[in-house]
Amino acid sequence: MSTQLIHTISELRETLSRQRRQGKTIGLVPTMGALHDGHGKLIEQSAQQADCTVVSIFVNPIQFNDPLDYDKYPRTLQTDVDCCASRCAGIVFAPSDEEMYPEPLRASVVVSELTEHLCGRFRPGHFRGVATVVMKLLQIVQPDRVYFGEKDAQQLAVIRRMVRDLNVPVEIVEVSTVREADGLAMSSRNQRLTHAEREIAPVLYRALLAARRRVSGGVRDTGEVKRHAEAMLRRPELRIEYFEIVDPDTMQPVERINGPVRVVTAVWLGSTRLIDNLLCEPQRL
Amino acid sequence: MSTQLIHTISELRETLSRQRRQGKTIGLVPTMGALHDGHGKLIEQSAQQADCTVVSIFVNPIQFNDPLDYDKYPRTLQTDVDCCASRCAGIVFAPSDEEMYPEPLRASVVVSELTEHLCGRFRPGHFRGVATVVMKLLQIVQPDRVYFGEKDAQQLAVIRRMVRDLNVPVEIVEVSTVREADGLAMSSRNQRLTHAEREIAPVLYRALLAARRRVSGGVRDTGEVKRHAEAMLRRPELRIEYFEIVDPDTMQPVERINGPVRVVTAVWLGSTRLIDNLLCEPQRL
Repeated sequence: MSTQLIHTISELRETLSRQRRQGKTIGLVPTMGALHDGHGKLIEQSAQQADCTVVSIFVNPIQFNDPLDYDKYPRTLQTDVDCCASRCAGIVFAPSDEEMYPEPLRASVVVSELTEHLCGRFRPGHFRGVATVVMKLLQIVQPDRVYFGEKDAQQLAVIRRMVRDLNVPVEIVEVSTVREADGLAMSSRNQRLTHAEREIAPVLYRALLAARRRVSGGVRDTGEVKRHAEAMLRRPELRIEYFEIVDPDTMQPVERINGPVRVVTAVWLGSTRLIDNLLCEPQRL
Repeated sequence: MSTQLIHTISELRETLSRQRRQGKTIGLVPTMGALHDGHGKLIEQSAQQADCTVVSIFVNPIQFNDPLDYDKYPRTLQTDVDCCASRCAGIVFAPSDEEMYPEPLRASVVVSELTEHLCGRFRPGHFRGVATVVMKLLQIVQPDRVYFGEKDAQQLAVIRRMVRDLNVPVEIVEVSTVREADGLAMSSRNQRLTHAEREIAPVLYRALLAARRRVSGGVRDTGEVKRHAEAMLRRPELRIEYFEIVDPDTMQPVERINGPVRVVTAVWLGSTRLIDNLLCEPQRL
């Protein structure tokens, strides 16, 4: 199966409206490129469920609060297109900045409450940028289903709320995190780690697993769960940005665990920021 | 032709997806009810252009900055349905507040710059409420075309920008203002005017016409145009909220007239707020 590389909105819309007229269903996998096996799983799942899978590749400038992070973000279009082709994506949509933002942006989508804590607190404007670009892609592609990874849990919660509140006619499919053999969650930013940092990085997942063991073991006080897990992360090479236990829908911090919670963390390893999370179910009494 | 009254989003979506599968085009006329001939013209134009016209009737609570204005807003559903039927609208969509806002709204659409002045300055949150409900209706109905009146010029500019910036796949149709014989722009709020206020109200249009005569007569200084027109509005019964000359796209006040401008005004007549506007072309040299 050949994969079509499309750069303009008008060409994409024409191609998709032909598909739609033939009664074909459309799946969208929004990415910023630098595709890894985590994206691969999203693409495979869409290719199984939809007649036509669109992978968008766009390093979205308005979601970067740090210009250096934006500049450093890996761009590997040809490898990405090959990855999409090998996973049976019909279309790669790779627009330019000018195509997506032809004039200064005045309208945007804001999501309150869910964006106050965690990444929202440390990356001002980030989720407004994410919600806005995802809304644009949903309007351009009009997919039946859109695929997101569980790794970006707060992003997923924000998009879920946007789709529900604004009645966007799309089904959201959540795909579980893909990990390296040693537990490190796959991320385009992993390639920036030095060898020494890469050796340390799996401690993130081990701390999450430790928190999950405590929660499923019956600990109800989130303070206790956090103290234990954070101790595992206390190393000179690593700086904790946050380690929180939150409600999975509202992303608000929880004090007592009375139902499913999500343990979420962001850390800095040298000059690379890594995030990860785990859904934890308390022991049923 | 019979008009179908629908109250729920799911029933509306089912009905419309049947129409769409039959290749029919859909027109949307978003209203807050209390329909008058201005709305009538929007409905007629949609009925001419689309196979199926949906008139939404929803007094949107989140666009009212003044709770009293919301309470006083006229609600005349049965008359409205008759009006839609006589104008060949296929569907009236009249959802409840709970249907449109089943839970506290967290996601909304904000439009900057265009909303800073004029009504945006005097009605904080108004345009966020308008943009958000229109986005919801566009996602629910997914019309080919959506119809708005020129009378709400700032609203129209905001919606245009939202649709452009967020790539919403819909064509916006602007329909010119319908006026009473004496020039008063039709509005659902006109019915709140006392007899004495109703006699005074047409001065609004006369002041706009006077401004237009000056602009087309070659006056370039907006201060001069405004001074003359505002003098006509200086009466004890009337309070000017704003009288401005703005760029028709950005709604930013203009000092020198070098191209088409929109003269826009809002006044209070007793406890009723009226707005009106006119597009003015300067004399070609």
